[in-house]
Amino acid sequence: MAEKSNLLPRPLYAINAGLDAFAQSLRAQGAAVTQVDWSPPRVPKLHHTGQGIDIEAANAEACRRINAGRPRLLGLGPARQVIPGCHDRLILHAGPPIAWERMCGPQRGAVMGALVYEGLAEDEEQAAALAAEGEVEFAPCHHYHAVGPMAGIISPSMPVFVVENQAYGNLAYATQNEGLGRVLRYGAYGPGVYERLRWMEEMLYPTLQAALESIEDGIDLRALISQALHMGDECHNRNRAGTSLFLRAITPALMRTCPDGQRAAAVFEFIEKNDHFFLNLSMAAAKALLEPAEGIPGSTVLSVMARNGTDFGIRLAGEPERWFTAPAGVVDGLYLPGFGAEDANPDIGDSTVTETAGFGAFAMAGAPAIARFVGGSPEDALETTLEMYEICFAEHEHFTLPALDFRGTPLGIDVRLVAESGIRPRLNTGIAHKEPGIGMVGAGVLRAPAACFEAAFRAVQRW
Amino acid sequence: MAEKSNLLPRPLYAINAGLDAFAQSLRAQGAAVTQVDWSPPRVPKLHHTGQGIDIEAANAEACRRINAGRPRLLGLGPARQVIPGCHDRLILHAGPPIAWERMCGPQRGAVMGALVYEGLAEDEEQAAALAAEGEVEFAPCHHYHAVGPMAGIISPSMPVFVVENQAYGNLAYATQNEGLGRVLRYGAYGPGVYERLRWMEEMLYPTLQAALESIEDGIDLRALISQALHMGDECHNRNRAGTSLFLRAITPALMRTCPDGQRAAAVFEFIEKNDHFFLNLSMAAAKALLEPAEGIPGSTVLSVMARNGTDFGIRLAGEPERWFTAPAGVVDGLYLPGFGAEDANPDIGDSTVTETAGFGAFAMAGAPAIARFVGGSPEDALETTLEMYEICFAEHEHFTLPALDFRGTPLGIDVRLVAESGIRPRLNTGIAHKEPGIGMVGAGVLRAPAACFEAAFRAVQRW
Repeated sequence: MAEKSNLLPRPLYAINAGLDAFAQSLRAQGAAVTQVDWSPPRVPKLHHTGQGIDIEAANAEACRRINAGRPRLLGLGPARQVIPGCHDRLILHAGPPIAWERMCGPQRGAVMGALVYEGLAEDEEQAAALAAEGEVEFAPCHHYHAVGPMAGIISPSMPVFVVENQAYGNLAYATQNEGLGRVLRYGAYGPGVYERLRWMEEMLYPTLQAALESIEDGIDLRALISQALHMGDECHNRNRAGTSLFLRAITPALMRTCPDGQRAAAVFEFIEKNDHFFLNLSMAAAKALLEPAEGIPGSTVLSVMARNGTDFGIRLAGEPERWFTAPAGVVDGLYLPGFGAEDANPDIGDSTVTETAGFGAFAMAGAPAIARFVGGSPEDALETTLEMYEICFAEHEHFTLPALDFRGTPLGIDVRLVAESGIRPRLNTGIAHKEPGIGMVGAGVLRAPAACFEAAFRAVQRW
Repeated sequence: MAEKSNLLPRPLYAINAGLDAFAQSLRAQGAAVTQVDWSPPRVPKLHHTGQGIDIEAANAEACRRINAGRPRLLGLGPARQVIPGCHDRLILHAGPPIAWERMCGPQRGAVMGALVYEGLAEDEEQAAALAAEGEVEFAPCHHYHAVGPMAGIISPSMPVFVVENQAYGNLAYATQNEGLGRVLRYGAYGPGVYERLRWMEEMLYPTLQAALESIEDGIDLRALISQALHMGDECHNRNRAGTSLFLRAITPALMRTCPDGQRAAAVFEFIEKNDHFFLNLSMAAAKALLEPAEGIPGSTVLSVMARNGTDFGIRLAGEPERWFTAPAGVVDGLYLPGFGAEDANPDIGDSTVTETAGFGAFAMAGAPAIARFVGGSPEDALETTLEMYEICFAEHEHFTLPALDFRGTPLGIDVRLVAESGIRPRLNTGIAHKEPGIGMVGAGVLRAPAACFEAAFRAVQRW
């Protein structure tokens, strides 16, 4: 005290902002203090673009559109028939644009497998040569209104779900989920993988399509996600409830349209034995929800967040054609027996479209049981959701979390809030083996890399 | 301090038990203190019966048997064929024994409806006369290894599920769930009620039975409950996940054994449209789990807790033939439009068999969304489970709660702990209209009445 007083030889006139305790300390030393109510800035500092566009209003409109979306599953069709612009040599992949040379192992493996499945190559070696020679056109799924989990490969013959956002009329696409383990999307190839893909094309697809055709106005995916979030799913890496609810929604139609009970049972069982079946539907729903937010000038919320296993890329609703990328991150995972961190490919897949649309890891507070799949504790799951509110512009109106007293999930990752807080989005994800041809090795959690958010924020500052 | 010292004119020699702070205070005043480690009694004081039986060991054995149980759904059959001792004039009801004269409105209504459904009476008036004249034998479901939700009426023609506890070979029974609203178990009667019951007898039962017959070793109900508890159900008043998982388990067999797709679809849809369908299965499973614990001398855990809408009754594993009863409680409820507390019958039904077996309200920490059905907040749901640990002897090994870091649910209501703590079991429940013939009016929560626990504890003191 005596020392401190020596530093104050003249009367002190202070203005104290925030915590009153500082003012009291000063007063105790005889200083005149004016106390000002203040707390650290929560509202982002950047309120307008350089061109004077109101960013808050733009983001409010983006989140309003996402909240207003009504994604419904209308049916399925082969990618080449239903995805506009798809052609026989087009291979769509997860994440931002990438050339064959820079593709990671599992994405290459899935491309090789897809080319064999398509009959464009006789074996995986020939497929790799074909890809390397530029005989195939690669493009991100996101450039074609589509999303793909993990490697995210969509080849022309693959049947894809068609989801319409009936509030805006836009369509989104995703393949049927193959299950876990040695599957194409984790980079596996080989006879077992092709046999499953062919069965999905020849049996699963037409049977589901006939059922869906008979359901007037399709299946309300927003309702299924909303219910599943009340049933322990976060609809990214836990989809047991979503898969159950999808089966409840489609089965009566399946029974009525499939006269062969054995066939209907085989289709039902394929889905029933794969708790992740709903993932691709939740992803397509998320994509359908997000696209109407794209192209709102001045909006700093993310409309895309996706990884190709090499790069992590984001796009902003206010500048939707531009990718901001950074190296894909390392996953903190739980591994399948016989595998470890040394086998893991970096973070991969379009499934972060779920977090972008306000669920997935952002809704983990409602999915404590996921700790057994992706690691961590139920407390971490709760903490994840609470932290993500810090970097989101809004809260979801239709997706709520009972454990948080029915609070809406964090919606609309705002690149300004990420930049200001230094809090990066949290994700959960499956883990693919880094070599082509092997498949799934685990699942885990991580944060999005900082660099692409920093680059996006710098771009916003120049808007 | 000076005053206090005046009260201690002579040297003080103190022994302090528990909180060290008291000892420090005394020492500060110059007193000699011996500190003894101690905390308030958690272990019940009554460790042995008057005959010297080790109560702790007996309760450990009771809970071991409940934990070891493996209830599987094997099939269905008409009550008169599959329930031993059932005959054409026997009407089983929920709760402890009761004569027609003391039956509450909804239980009378359900009896009247059941007699018309059976063809024993032409109309409800005649049915009431028949019942009043003693032409019908009434007995608790619990006396016949059965359980019935709400009024809990089982009449001879009703198909019942047959559940075997494969660890012990004992069987348990429950009817098929009718749905909510104007249904027999809520005391409603009339053409719509009978039409539904006949459809359940002629269509639902044989179709499900054919499917179940084709499933080797039946359906593992413990696994379904265990999963449902990770999916937001508590398997008493929230059964959306359990119903979904039951449909997942039975549908392939249903498709293979029912050649008529329209019929299969109608059966599937009846279950799909009733999220409470699984309740009767979770109740039969609970009954099958609890019976092997009955007859363990000295066990003070409950093997039965049931209400008939007039009386609330409990039975102890150590004296399983004896009912201890008290007046049924008033439910704190949420009401359907047009109804209020003045319409409500007191607490009714055997569904408290779920709490007795360690789930239901005792697992509400895992079912925060139930607040929208039975009232209260997600925090109350958490608090309910945490409090119930105080009066339970053990924790379940197979039923766990992710939100509590996968802690086992509170298992084995110990009448000693209830008596010592004054904490009464918490329940959640549907609410029936107090008049016969009307049906459901709401759902809510309450605590079991104290008097039957006090009576049971007094009996234990005389063992």
